[in-house]
Amino acid sequence: MFVNNDANQRLCESLVSTSYVRQADEASKRQTKLFSQLVSNRKLPTDGWNEQVIESFLLELSQLDSNNFLDNCGVGEREGRVYSKLVQRRNFGLHHGIGRSGDVSADQPKAIGSSIIAKLANILVADAMKISGLQSIDSTTTLLLPLCTGMSLCSVFNALRAHQREEQNAKEDERQNTIVWTRLDQKTCIKSILASGYDVCVVDPILEKDELVTNLQALEKELSAEENENTKKIACVVSSTSCFAPRASDDVEAIAKLCQKYNVAHVINNAYGVQSRKLCVKIEAAMRKGRVDCVVQSLDKNFLVPVGGAIVCASKGNGYLVDKVRKLYPGRASISSTLDVLITLLEMGKTGYERLLDERETNYEKLKMALERTASKYGERVLETPNNPISLGVTLTSSRNDLVTKFGSMLFTRRVSGARTVPMQETKKIGDVELRGFGASFSTYPTAYFTAAAAIGMREKEIESFELQLEKTFKDFVKLT
Amino acid sequence: MFVNNDANQRLCESLVSTSYVRQADEASKRQTKLFSQLVSNRKLPTDGWNEQVIESFLLELSQLDSNNFLDNCGVGEREGRVYSKLVQRRNFGLHHGIGRSGDVSADQPKAIGSSIIAKLANILVADAMKISGLQSIDSTTTLLLPLCTGMSLCSVFNALRAHQREEQNAKEDERQNTIVWTRLDQKTCIKSILASGYDVCVVDPILEKDELVTNLQALEKELSAEENENTKKIACVVSSTSCFAPRASDDVEAIAKLCQKYNVAHVINNAYGVQSRKLCVKIEAAMRKGRVDCVVQSLDKNFLVPVGGAIVCASKGNGYLVDKVRKLYPGRASISSTLDVLITLLEMGKTGYERLLDERETNYEKLKMALERTASKYGERVLETPNNPISLGVTLTSSRNDLVTKFGSMLFTRRVSGARTVPMQETKKIGDVELRGFGASFSTYPTAYFTAAAAIGMREKEIESFELQLEKTFKDFVKLT
Amino acid sequence: MFVNNDANQRLCESLVSTSYVRQADEASKRQTKLFSQLVSNRKLPTDGWNEQVIESFLLELSQLDSNNFLDNCGVGEREGRVYSKLVQRRNFGLHHGIGRSGDVSADQPKAIGSSIIAKLANILVADAMKISGLQSIDSTTTLLLPLCTGMSLCSVFNALRAHQREEQNAKEDERQNTIVWTRLDQKTCIKSILASGYDVCVVDPILEKDELVTNLQALEKELSAEENENTKKIACVVSSTSCFAPRASDDVEAIAKLCQKYNVAHVINNAYGVQSRKLCVKIEAAMRKGRVDCVVQSLDKNFLVPVGGAIVCASKGNGYLVDKVRKLYPGRASISSTLDVLITLLEMGKTGYERLLDERETNYEKLKMALERTASKYGERVLETPNNPISLGVTLTSSRNDLVTKFGSMLFTRRVSGARTVPMQETKKIGDVELRGFGASFSTYPTAYFTAAAAIGMREKEIESFELQLEKTFKDFVKLT
Amino acid sequence: MFVNNDANQRLCESLVSTSYVRQADEASKRQTKLFSQLVSNRKLPTDGWNEQVIESFLLELSQLDSNNFLDNCGVGEREGRVYSKLVQRRNFGLHHGIGRSGDVSADQPKAIGSSIIAKLANILVADAMKISGLQSIDSTTTLLLPLCTGMSLCSVFNALRAHQREEQNAKEDERQNTIVWTRLDQKTCIKSILASGYDVCVVDPILEKDELVTNLQALEKELSAEENENTKKIACVVSSTSCFAPRASDDVEAIAKLCQKYNVAHVINNAYGVQSRKLCVKIEAAMRKGRVDCVVQSLDKNFLVPVGGAIVCASKGNGYLVDKVRKLYPGRASISSTLDVLITLLEMGKTGYERLLDERETNYEKLKMALERTASKYGERVLETPNNPISLGVTLTSSRNDLVTKFGSMLFTRRVSGARTVPMQETKKIGDVELRGFGASFSTYPTAYFTAAAAIGMREKEIESFELQLEKTFKDFVKLT
Repeated sequence: MFVNNDANQRLCESLVSTSYVRQADEASKRQTKLFSQLVSNRKLPTDGWNEQVIESFLLELSQLDSNNFLDNCGVGEREGRVYSKLVQRRNFGLHHGIGRSGDVSADQPKAIGSSIIAKLANILVADAMKISGLQSIDSTTTLLLPLCTGMSLCSVFNALRAHQREEQNAKEDERQNTIVWTRLDQKTCIKSILASGYDVCVVDPILEKDELVTNLQALEKELSAEENENTKKIACVVSSTSCFAPRASDDVEAIAKLCQKYNVAHVINNAYGVQSRKLCVKIEAAMRKGRVDCVVQSLDKNFLVPVGGAIVCASKGNGYLVDKVRKLYPGRASISSTLDVLITLLEMGKTGYERLLDERETNYEKLKMALERTASKYGERVLETPNNPISLGVTLTSSRNDLVTKFGSMLFTRRVSGARTVPMQETKKIGDVELRGFGASFSTYPTAYFTAAAAIGMREKEIESFELQLEKTFKDFVKLT
Repeated sequence: MFVNNDANQRLCESLVSTSYVRQADEASKRQTKLFSQLVSNRKLPTDGWNEQVIESFLLELSQLDSNNFLDNCGVGEREGRVYSKLVQRRNFGLHHGIGRSGDVSADQPKAIGSSIIAKLANILVADAMKISGLQSIDSTTTLLLPLCTGMSLCSVFNALRAHQREEQNAKEDERQNTIVWTRLDQKTCIKSILASGYDVCVVDPILEKDELVTNLQALEKELSAEENENTKKIACVVSSTSCFAPRASDDVEAIAKLCQKYNVAHVINNAYGVQSRKLCVKIEAAMRKGRVDCVVQSLDKNFLVPVGGAIVCASKGNGYLVDKVRKLYPGRASISSTLDVLITLLEMGKTGYERLLDERETNYEKLKMALERTASKYGERVLETPNNPISLGVTLTSSRNDLVTKFGSMLFTRRVSGARTVPMQETKKIGDVELRGFGASFSTYPTAYFTAAAAIGMREKEIESFELQLEKTFKDFVKLT
Repeated sequence: MFVNNDANQRLCESLVSTSYVRQADEASKRQTKLFSQLVSNRKLPTDGWNEQVIESFLLELSQLDSNNFLDNCGVGEREGRVYSKLVQRRNFGLHHGIGRSGDVSADQPKAIGSSIIAKLANILVADAMKISGLQSIDSTTTLLLPLCTGMSLCSVFNALRAHQREEQNAKEDERQNTIVWTRLDQKTCIKSILASGYDVCVVDPILEKDELVTNLQALEKELSAEENENTKKIACVVSSTSCFAPRASDDVEAIAKLCQKYNVAHVINNAYGVQSRKLCVKIEAAMRKGRVDCVVQSLDKNFLVPVGGAIVCASKGNGYLVDKVRKLYPGRASISSTLDVLITLLEMGKTGYERLLDERETNYEKLKMALERTASKYGERVLETPNNPISLGVTLTSSRNDLVTKFGSMLFTRRVSGARTVPMQETKKIGDVELRGFGASFSTYPTAYFTAAAAIGMREKEIESFELQLEKTFKDFVKLT
Repeated sequence: MFVNNDANQRLCESLVSTSYVRQADEASKRQTKLFSQLVSNRKLPTDGWNEQVIESFLLELSQLDSNNFLDNCGVGEREGRVYSKLVQRRNFGLHHGIGRSGDVSADQPKAIGSSIIAKLANILVADAMKISGLQSIDSTTTLLLPLCTGMSLCSVFNALRAHQREEQNAKEDERQNTIVWTRLDQKTCIKSILASGYDVCVVDPILEKDELVTNLQALEKELSAEENENTKKIACVVSSTSCFAPRASDDVEAIAKLCQKYNVAHVINNAYGVQSRKLCVKIEAAMRKGRVDCVVQSLDKNFLVPVGGAIVCASKGNGYLVDKVRKLYPGRASISSTLDVLITLLEMGKTGYERLLDERETNYEKLKMALERTASKYGERVLETPNNPISLGVTLTSSRNDLVTKFGSMLFTRRVSGARTVPMQETKKIGDVELRGFGASFSTYPTAYFTAAAAIGMREKEIESFELQLEKTFKDFVKLT
């Protein structure tokens, strides 16, 4: 910006000696190369950039946005003005958000810097997802949304409807009204279905030993039944990969084949599954061998950024739904999550990201062993859930729901956050859908339990300290029961 | 946190002299009082806080979030971990976003600091809106959404549908499917209707002298017709206040009365209208004398923060739809806009905010005079639009659309951003809705024109420099025609 | 750095449209020009740069320092490593300080960025001082020291000694041992004389009406006496400009003429005098018409930066002593003050700096009127000190020293900082020098008084609030006496 | 500050639920405890604080400085005003520097926060030095100076003179004029002697095998001779510990005994020796068994902070010279280095600091092996210098000085910084002192060589990459010779 053109370097020779300026030129060229490699490779840099380089990069790009032009004169209703310097600084002067009213991925004429940032973030996220195993996707079929997973699913469902209407010219009475959902007891997904105006058709899992797996028969029944009924017109099936044990990842490959067979759209809720290469391999297989219209995942849970964004993607050449989401999105959006993930991926680099994936897998094994050690001392056991590579469940032999809940708060008091206790046989109504055995994703799971997860970014120290606190908690818990 | 309890102050006496510690204690108490006044008054502080106090405040609150506990041990799937220190810093360590899966305004047990911040932002925004003139609203009927205006409108329309289904138990064939929209040629609003799955019924304005005003007769016809037809079931009317001249603000009071008469919901798109006390007075009257189910406005355009948020509000005691939006929202959301607006309002204080409102009004007059001066020199004139207190239009006497567009790019090259040129008789299709005379909000507006706006935060210097550049542009333009 | 070479701009066209990249290029060129203008003009920019541009500039320069090279491998004992990211950030990665062991202004081969920054800071400070009125100086005879005024004076005195020994080859028995000092009751200056190992010869001022002015006769006596005595060998005269009323600025022109006549070095302590064009005019005259070997001034008091630096300067062509200071300085030094003043002057620009000088003059008049209004109500009066353009004194008619002191603490309790009360006839010993009437710079000043100053950066609001608090304090004070 | 008193917590209950507020209270108390432990233990915290806590801590303390009071009204000549927000932010609003005109360690009435910070930094630095092995020192005999090592030595020499004059009432003809210096070819130390006005008496080392060690005989001769001569009156002996190989650390214990015997002051230049427990043990022995008046060391080289500060210390109960330095210091000083080291030590904690000391020792062994491996391939060898625990020398068999120098620049081009090549038989004059064989600290060192150091904070990766680059450089070098 300042010293890396020839003329300015000549000027610098009036300040420091020529040989020093030559050195500076070389240093400056190394930076320039970082950027050219990034844009031409369209991949994560092998080694991450350091914080200062990233900050310098963002400040330079932000100066391409019109609100930061030194002599800009704004006469529109939105000119990227901010009142607070603190706000300006924390946003690096990138005030125009992303997208335009016509398309959330469109370049903004007033904000070239922001536009480049958005493009790069998209490219790097797509590359990171490929590294995780989603080989078939592509930056053109990957969309970073400044919405969380739930709102993103909602946008996908809205896009499905708009697609049917606008592209397929569905008549009033052909319009789809139902989404089939393989049950997963977490409110977000079901709420996103209801929020977008569809009815929910719940398919409960089946219990195989300890594990809850996809009930493919029941699912097929719903899909095949469709043709015979008038009122239930299925818009899509929503399956899930990442979830709390003892629920396993859905058999997304088998579901994809069924969807293909019955010509029904298939949306995979891969919330925090990008962090697991195992889950990504499953989705990749589903995309290759069956029908997957799009996959939705959280930005924060997979890429260690603050809550706020999600990724909608599809396999290359099959991006119709992703495109529809992009174009249906009304108006601009915050650049905040985009910025956070761009910074993070530049800083991680490929090496850093792969190390995190590796560490997570190691931590899963360590966590499992820690849980087994502790559980066995108190007559409990770790549930066998081989198809859930992230979350682990441990039985809590007590039929008193209040005590089970108490176990959770005892852990929380000991500064353990995120353990989830599931009592037996609770019932919950979400919208007009009633779910028995809520929490377990199953009406009659035979035991109460708690879960713990080996999520990306967990430190080994946390496992150690968790084992310690769990031990203490069990000791106290035994006295209560 | 550190030196404002008695014990620590005693300890400080081992470092500096007692009388100095006493001074420090007083300084510390003044800070404590800032917070107690804020929370007990539930209003903007009269004078703004300075940047350092705000930063200190945010850092202190963020330390109440579990991810920042020194000895936290996280075993959940979302623990607020971030990889990059740069990301952490720009988010003040507030990584958990806002809301819970059940309610976007719910407190988060893992993130007390974030929860308090979200509550305070909501309270201050509500107070600022009252200062602008929306006296009937209240922090309980005000909802800050981390979504832009378009997506927020979309959420409102989804909430209307859910309300009809869940609270009113509408049967399949009674379900509403149409939204009546007083035309405003900006893609966002109409896209938000389509995205939420409704059909659009467009009510064109009528031309009164230069100005485009609400066609109340046509609107009433649509509303009354409803009872007689089977297919068109009206969910709501969407009116707009802030808009590009020569369209005037809708007569929201009259519309509200019609909505009350025909028992139809009424949503006001008040995009950047909070900055105008005139527009707020109109809405206030509409809320008092007719039916207004909710009002939606942009956060960034009204409060000088980066793009990313919106506010949905209703009059006190009439918050059913705001509540429904809050509860229907699936999952968490980014805290980013919340943080930006909280920082901004704390820094502005009431005095600062009122000064901005005043300055904007003055600027409107100055801008108008500048436009009149320049236009008259070139045989053009400022369109008379007394009911649009923000935007101004100037005729461009040329029937060649390419030249009209050229005028815009000539201004942009001269570093004037945000001027909007509107050629005659363009047609645009959005979804399946065709709009003739697109840009003007009217099929046959009799002249091409350009617009300029006196938006909040505009500096007087910008008006001066705009006049200068406009003069030059006209001079060049004349040569072309 | 990143997008402002041609190759990278071509690459950007793969991300955003070509016309947008062209825009970005123009924006980028405007930044490049800022730097080229700065270096080629070697003056303050007319209008200040904004914060973001400055930050971007510093980050870019810091990347020219070897510790920030991406692949640097350090095997020295000082490699600019820092442990804390927070420390790194607040120093913009500039860890090598300034200077080399041989010369505090020398370029550092490992730290080109820091070297350029140091050069620019020096250039801008010299320009600002010229704007204040020191027309004869030059960036080559101006030295920014990361030492406060006192330590800088000390360095000057050391340099005088080294000059005598090394350049003039003074023999053991010819070595100078005494510095003549026109009394100014502030400990720093006299301590700096003692610290550098000289004896002090005090020349008291004389009282002219209210004002204490230079006793030129007494001074000349000391200088002329020198030749006759063996023990007292005068190294230099130290005069002062800025000081607390009722002491006036020394008559530096007359002193300079005496020094020329008697061939004695003359050092001017211009501590906070750069902010006053009147004082600078006096120094300029002294430099032109008599002998001034160097002028020392504070960085923080004149340029609104944190405490930490000082400036040593001399008129063009007469930089021998400044050079000696530079070369005698043993080792490197902190870049902190250099950085602070560079940021500040870039942000101020010439316009901003001149406005501050103007405002200070206006504030002096306002402060004087405020003091006159209040003093007259309580039977006190403002001391007439026409030759002190910054500080003002107000009589305190009380012979009880404890009450006079109490007046000061009453003001401090009312949040007035910096008022200085001077009781009568106190005596203080500094080193082996005893000063009677300490505080007043005079043994027998006829009244107690307090002082207040119109310093650069004071806001009008502070004068108003001071008047208010002073009024209240007088009211209470009257009750005590 | 905000939420940690009872009243404010009650108010928070109006925002979030009571149980959450209780949690917040606990979190807040944990922070409060961090501070109380720090102040009451007066030691490094066992585990370091995280960045956010430190930032919050500094912001809170800075709000105790009067310039940050919300309603302060300043009428002094120095009120801590800054122009630039960027400057303010990077200094955390701590603008008053440290010290007062009377004492650089004195509390500042206008800046309590800064005063507490300065005290804490001093305490923590003293504790870190004890951890390194300087057990006899104490925070009361430790002084953090915002000056580099050279200027700090200069202050010590000035203090010695002032002590002799003021406390011992030395007559004119008894005044000391000479400092005995055990030669170390680095310009800083000798320049600091000259700058403070003393003559230098150089004591060359003697060569023992490869190593250059203290010539105790020659030293004793100088000390004993003193009594007989009139002109040379010795103020002190300056010895050095850390230095470039092949010079060894001085035998400070033996020197201390000589100084005691001859009643001469002894100043140890321990520049970057705090990082080596071996060197600290030697100094500790010297303090216990002989005379050490004070020890001076660099802040940046030992504690991984930017260039700018130094530490002057003495054993408990023997702080007379440290006190004199403190009191002689004329005026205030920058808080910058104080802040940097406080942040750093809080972030390191005891654990982090000890780990760094350990790693450095391991790195020394690794570096040595890497040098041996490479040197032996090219017929060179590592010099045996068992008494230099930081720096290592490798022979360069070439009598051509230009080639030796070339070797250094070849390394630098390969991004190796800090390697130092020493040709044979260069001569340099510093002030009036001529040093033959400059660079080697010895007139006739038998070989040219280069040095590399295992300094604190070096990463293992740097050693690996150094070995690689060294190998390449030797390969090219061989071709030249």
